Amino acid sequence: MGMNTFGELFTVTTCGESHGRALACIVDGVPPGIRISEEMLQKELDRRRPGSTRFGTPRSEPDTVEIISGVFEGVTTGTPVGLIIRNTAQRSQDYADIKNVFRPGHADFTYTVKYGVRDYRGGGRASARETAMRVAAGAIAKACLKELFNVTVSGCVTAIGPISTPRYDAAAALANPFNFADPSLCPKLEEYINTLREEHDSCGAIIEVRAHNVPAGWGSPVFDRLDATIAQALMSINAVKGVEIGDGFALAALRGTEARDEIRAAGFMSNHMGGILGGVSSGQEIRARIALKPTSSILSPGKSIDTEGHEIDVVTRGRHDPCVGIRAVPIAEAMLALTLLDAALTDRAQCGHVVRESLFDRKQAG
Amino acid sequence: MGMNTFGELFTVTTCGESHGRALACIVDGVPPGIRISEEMLQKELDRRRPGSTRFGTPRSEPDTVEIISGVFEGVTTGTPVGLIIRNTAQRSQDYADIKNVFRPGHADFTYTVKYGVRDYRGGGRASARETAMRVAAGAIAKACLKELFNVTVSGCVTAIGPISTPRYDAAAALANPFNFADPSLCPKLEEYINTLREEHDSCGAIIEVRAHNVPAGWGSPVFDRLDATIAQALMSINAVKGVEIGDGFALAALRGTEARDEIRAAGFMSNHMGGILGGVSSGQEIRARIALKPTSSILSPGKSIDTEGHEIDVVTRGRHDPCVGIRAVPIAEAMLALTLLDAALTDRAQCGHVVRESLFDRKQAG
Amino acid sequence: MGMNTFGELFTVTTCGESHGRALACIVDGVPPGIRISEEMLQKELDRRRPGSTRFGTPRSEPDTVEIISGVFEGVTTGTPVGLIIRNTAQRSQDYADIKNVFRPGHADFTYTVKYGVRDYRGGGRASARETAMRVAAGAIAKACLKELFNVTVSGCVTAIGPISTPRYDAAAALANPFNFADPSLCPKLEEYINTLREEHDSCGAIIEVRAHNVPAGWGSPVFDRLDATIAQALMSINAVKGVEIGDGFALAALRGTEARDEIRAAGFMSNHMGGILGGVSSGQEIRARIALKPTSSILSPGKSIDTEGHEIDVVTRGRHDPCVGIRAVPIAEAMLALTLLDAALTDRAQCGHVVRESLFDRKQAG
Amino acid sequence: MGMNTFGELFTVTTCGESHGRALACIVDGVPPGIRISEEMLQKELDRRRPGSTRFGTPRSEPDTVEIISGVFEGVTTGTPVGLIIRNTAQRSQDYADIKNVFRPGHADFTYTVKYGVRDYRGGGRASARETAMRVAAGAIAKACLKELFNVTVSGCVTAIGPISTPRYDAAAALANPFNFADPSLCPKLEEYINTLREEHDSCGAIIEVRAHNVPAGWGSPVFDRLDATIAQALMSINAVKGVEIGDGFALAALRGTEARDEIRAAGFMSNHMGGILGGVSSGQEIRARIALKPTSSILSPGKSIDTEGHEIDVVTRGRHDPCVGIRAVPIAEAMLALTLLDAALTDRAQCGHVVRESLFDRKQAG
Repeated sequence: MGMNTFGELFTVTTCGESHGRALACIVDGVPPGIRISEEMLQKELDRRRPGSTRFGTPRSEPDTVEIISGVFEGVTTGTPVGLIIRNTAQRSQDYADIKNVFRPGHADFTYTVKYGVRDYRGGGRASARETAMRVAAGAIAKACLKELFNVTVSGCVTAIGPISTPRYDAAAALANPFNFADPSLCPKLEEYINTLREEHDSCGAIIEVRAHNVPAGWGSPVFDRLDATIAQALMSINAVKGVEIGDGFALAALRGTEARDEIRAAGFMSNHMGGILGGVSSGQEIRARIALKPTSSILSPGKSIDTEGHEIDVVTRGRHDPCVGIRAVPIAEAMLALTLLDAALTDRAQCGHVVRESLFDRKQAG
Repeated sequence: MGMNTFGELFTVTTCGESHGRALACIVDGVPPGIRISEEMLQKELDRRRPGSTRFGTPRSEPDTVEIISGVFEGVTTGTPVGLIIRNTAQRSQDYADIKNVFRPGHADFTYTVKYGVRDYRGGGRASARETAMRVAAGAIAKACLKELFNVTVSGCVTAIGPISTPRYDAAAALANPFNFADPSLCPKLEEYINTLREEHDSCGAIIEVRAHNVPAGWGSPVFDRLDATIAQALMSINAVKGVEIGDGFALAALRGTEARDEIRAAGFMSNHMGGILGGVSSGQEIRARIALKPTSSILSPGKSIDTEGHEIDVVTRGRHDPCVGIRAVPIAEAMLALTLLDAALTDRAQCGHVVRESLFDRKQAG
Repeated sequence: MGMNTFGELFTVTTCGESHGRALACIVDGVPPGIRISEEMLQKELDRRRPGSTRFGTPRSEPDTVEIISGVFEGVTTGTPVGLIIRNTAQRSQDYADIKNVFRPGHADFTYTVKYGVRDYRGGGRASARETAMRVAAGAIAKACLKELFNVTVSGCVTAIGPISTPRYDAAAALANPFNFADPSLCPKLEEYINTLREEHDSCGAIIEVRAHNVPAGWGSPVFDRLDATIAQALMSINAVKGVEIGDGFALAALRGTEARDEIRAAGFMSNHMGGILGGVSSGQEIRARIALKPTSSILSPGKSIDTEGHEIDVVTRGRHDPCVGIRAVPIAEAMLALTLLDAALTDRAQCGHVVRESLFDRKQAG
Repeated sequence: MGMNTFGELFTVTTCGESHGRALACIVDGVPPGIRISEEMLQKELDRRRPGSTRFGTPRSEPDTVEIISGVFEGVTTGTPVGLIIRNTAQRSQDYADIKNVFRPGHADFTYTVKYGVRDYRGGGRASARETAMRVAAGAIAKACLKELFNVTVSGCVTAIGPISTPRYDAAAALANPFNFADPSLCPKLEEYINTLREEHDSCGAIIEVRAHNVPAGWGSPVFDRLDATIAQALMSINAVKGVEIGDGFALAALRGTEARDEIRAAGFMSNHMGGILGGVSSGQEIRARIALKPTSSILSPGKSIDTEGHEIDVVTRGRHDPCVGIRAVPIAEAMLALTLLDAALTDRAQCGHVVRESLFDRKQAG
């Protein structure tokens, strides 16, 4: 399978560099008969769009998506959906001076070694610009999940630098410029981000995503455990260096009597496992958290070498986000949606004939 | 791709239930001419073997592996290597009373819903017994990594329940029964594990694994980022619910000026990124950490329901590990080795013709 | 995906050499709840078994298959089904003299170049012995196709050397030792095969396979056209060098007015396309034909070189089939069954929600 | 893997309908550093282009390809190459009257059943227009094969309807409007095609493709035999219903003494096997032949039903090729090139460390 393809049955293949002509995406295995429109995709893209929050980059990229195939008279036809976003806001000259330089914390070094050649304009393929297509494809996955299985996905930022919250509130996050779960902390966040900007620095973030109404039975038990495919999906997002399912690392310090999610006739009594048991969804809410590293593109000079091996100081100019996590919520939601739809279709393929009745509250029902 | 297959080029396909006739594994895409023997595989298996530590289960399973194909006159032939381990120590009667019961924290519930049928003996396919074959296949991957690329893999436990260490010392871990990085904490660990046993409880753990001498250039930049494939590999291990690459979640609270790994002519000055930049190995040590949940198989009664929906209390008899993390180090090493070898072969496929000279210390060399 | 794995969702992974310890197979993605037994698999294996016809090799290999996982209390559990056949009838000494020789028409030469090493005993992995596991896995696919979709598969030999028939009669073929579609030609075939044996020679064959009751809608339109996946499946059988779907090569000389299968309210009026239109099954019978080359293992000396490059004459001793096609019918059926089940599950994954009513004879029905 | 993706390592994913906005293609796994230009791709596309021969459709589609990513400063960067061809010559009104009709011999019927919905304009995704992107991607594969391995691919038509030739002459084919191997038959072909047009009919064709300088060692021995992957590749082309490797079906009637390609110190003495032994290339020329059915889009009325089940007569208007084979040579070459490059990279992945010296003529060399 190609390295730029995600998924086994519902597959997303992307291409495009930050400052190339366009980004493109081919979504294959799309269930037929699902209503899809450019407006639906655009709405999600606008959540991720540079310039959408005044606490992100001041770059303004319209990111207008065009559907070129696979949708006819408003519904998917079962053939691959092609998407294209033309690049318009490139200011390649910002990058001429990094042509022969490895920006610390960036992929400049590893790409150059790996391929022997590098499109240095704006990070090329390594730019987070690539994630625009994940969001567009994720919007298609969300529509399929909703129409076929009544499943929805949500997300919010729960930590920005040292400021964090134990809350989860996706609705509240939609209404504040930090996409933050606890709006009462927004003044504090504003102050913190402004300080970072003044100090030419950046910070990391934590995002939590959840899926609602996922039925029990999605996912596979061994290498493709639902925990594992979600982990790959989320860890493949630029800047992500940690993934937790359910209580994640906190589980290491818990006892078995505390961590096991006990069951009553009405259902599970807790959700330490994040809705996944033995790699298969339990019918509870799916919960995952990711850690994003601080933006490496900062104005503070950094020590590095050039392609000739000479030691230099690098300043990354351009217009960058002080905290990439703020705009990454729709990306994380998209990757969760892609993973779940793939799991749903895989489950339907193998187990479509299995009769599944709820195991809960049968006595009451009887 | 099958759900019980790991990898794209160097692939591992496994089958077998805890109390079935045997476990089997087919390792495909094996580079030819590599020296492999049953002894090499057995040595790794013995590290994971139940009964190998007195702080694990008292079950003793010999786990004798047989190579049935793909090796001729001591070397791999390029054809698939078949492995088989006969099951011998099954005490299925231990499980007769859980036939119609969902043990909390186990896959009993999700398997039953998903498949409509369940091999209830010892957890069936959901048992960690499945991981024996990962270790055996991992031993083959380790041999290939070493012979072809001089790469090695190591690991140790860094936290057991609330007792943790910032140290990393794989050699020390090999010499103590907790596989723990800091042997000075062993008396404390012994006391803690004994208490858990007395209280019919269990605890979680954290394991760190590293890869040494990995050259720059392995991994792919987008969906198959090396961080992402390692995350899937490690998160697919039973009981794992969290994965970090490099500093992981701690990066969320760092600043860009702290986190970016700066570069000098002699090489990188730090390794917050765990040896992976932009999804591609940087030539530094690869570092990953995983969180394992506490064993769910404990003697303390847990609330649950039976397959008819009646509320019951469940006691999981059998002979279980109070902390599954202790024996999981070779499993995590195996999954890291499998991932790296796959990445190495994928890189050789696409970029085998790229000339790679070290970018460091050229002046000295010149 | 591994090179020794067939299929995308219902996958078959095999290993094992002709004279190694055992053959093994892992069948993954098996729908749960399907009745499977060793007897069912053995019955199919016995059709392929060396020694099953006096017009084949006099070698007698019992080929006893053991199910080691994935079946519990008589039904599939949804976990991978492991199969093993121990090798017992190896007479490796037959092959000692070909250790350093390339038998013409065999893979000896290409394996040696490719891998730099070769298991020379009986052709090793290149031996048709490998196909035993295809037949066993095919028996599982046949059971799934029958129970879930009421689809069956059949086949017969339609040409042996220069003797051919336009008939297709799978039932008749089961009752004669040549598996031939037209039993009236058996005396002629017997004479021909006896002559070949006396002359230390061999011949090729043509086999036709069909699938019955396949509903319209299986297969994918572009690279995974059902014609294409069937072609790969059948062409992957040892000795096969040609595949036709429907009228195949004869279509090149037909006119459009003759070849297009016209439609009436009662259904299609002809089946030149072999039941596949635009890569998708049409609801008609699936029909495919394969050409097998003559056995290369013959007693007549052949010109070749040894591994040092010296010119030599090679005689292939051992006990070989004068026409490998005779025993290949169950192999071809198996590959067709595997392909169809994979297509069925893929279709269920993507289109499981599409309501499909017959387009034929609605007026009568109305 | 997506159904609209071809290949395992060098992958081609396409989308686009005949009368949609555009065709697109993402080529992944491209070796870096290969010189690619739009001109190179356009040159191949122009060979397939409608309107390129007066014996094809009079439709004129410019088929102008744009490279949107993956190429920087003239060479591939190792990131996916995106291609787009805007549709311009659509005359959708030609198809309004087939909206509710199943044209016999077309995919109209099977798409409608499979997906429950159909883009009826010009065959939608089922149109051979889809193959334009195969040709463009094939041009990239050809460039990689040539630069990295010095391998080239060629092809020619060897039969049109009842007129055939035993010759193979790709250079001659390039110089005549039938792409025919034997130019002396062109007057006869012209007469035949003109008759077909007058009679509102069409005919099938046979194409042969070859690969030159392929080293021994490409391909895998079992399910991914090189014969098998070539068969899938070629059989996935619209209208193809038969594939032969080497002597193909003629081998069924040969004897072992005739068919085995004997070997001398100077090399193989014949090439009945089409350059593939045991699924692996032998170092000889790769040879494959395909049969294409007659065009179903003809002006002669055909019997069919409409989507309500009523019996009707259908005339396919529009501007169609009387013989689709004539323009299909570059498509077949492209599919062979894609298959071979994928095999080459797969072989480099697994066996890149195997030292391969020629086994032929060592004595002379010595």
